[in-house]
Amino acid sequence: MDPKNYICPQSAIDSAIKIINFNSDGLVPAIAQQHDTGEVLMMAWMNRESITETLKNGLVCYYSRSRKKLWRKGEVSGHTQSLKDFRIDCDGDTILLLVQQIGVACHTGRQNCFFNSVVTDGIKVITDVKIDPKDMYNK
Amino acid sequence: MDPKNYICPQSAIDSAIKIINFNSDGLVPAIAQQHDTGEVLMMAWMNRESITETLKNGLVCYYSRSRKKLWRKGEVSGHTQSLKDFRIDCDGDTILLLVQQIGVACHTGRQNCFFNSVVTDGIKVITDVKIDPKDMYNK
Repeated sequence: MDPKNYICPQSAIDSAIKIINFNSDGLVPAIAQQHDTGEVLMMAWMNRESITETLKNGLVCYYSRSRKKLWRKGEVSGHTQSLKDFRIDCDGDTILLLVQQIGVACHTGRQNCFFNSVVTDGIKVITDVKIDPKDMYNK
Repeated sequence: MDPKNYICPQSAIDSAIKIINFNSDGLVPAIAQQHDTGEVLMMAWMNRESITETLKNGLVCYYSRSRKKLWRKGEVSGHTQSLKDFRIDCDGDTILLLVQQIGVACHTGRQNCFFNSVVTDGIKVITDVKIDPKDMYNK
């Protein structure tokens, strides 16, 4: 689906929210995957409000558990995620967001958050920092 | 890393567990991704014991929150997941498992669990059942 179509009607948003099994905190985990390469970028949490905003605007909005408020991904850094598809799993307790990542997904300046690989020696960092985090947050 | 190398030494398992931030239930979400195609197959939960078993054997073992016990993926259906890489994210609260899925990942008989797509009309099922679930569980 083209991102502009994610100016979703309220009826579609209601259908989505109806089949999602939110946890006792009203949250559901959401995986962000780069739509054209398949790279898994990050995992974060969404609530009803962030899902509604995401489907209405076509720009991914999470819920920050630490800050206890909506987390409009890229609001500070400019590294937004445009929504390409919004998928819900078989038992409604996980979301898969297919996105176009602008810039990098990880706050460390790496393209994705999963850079610690477990190898026989222990933990190996397998991807390089692409953008200095200082340049992402102190503009 | 070759799956056979995932007969990981205890020291590597300890290093992994040390940087994982388990939630208050002692669990961490784990995303399973098909290693060669990038297909996101499912998301489930792991605890220390299931992580240890997974890294020792090279076969993915989750923790079932509903059954409150280890869930050796594919133990009944034969649809196991061989571990190709075990990655931990930037803040240690999500795991990405790169796997070779034998058979299908979803209990509905679909290759992956994320078959409900939100479209303007509502929810559209976008993938077909590949194996009849009756043939997976009633052998």
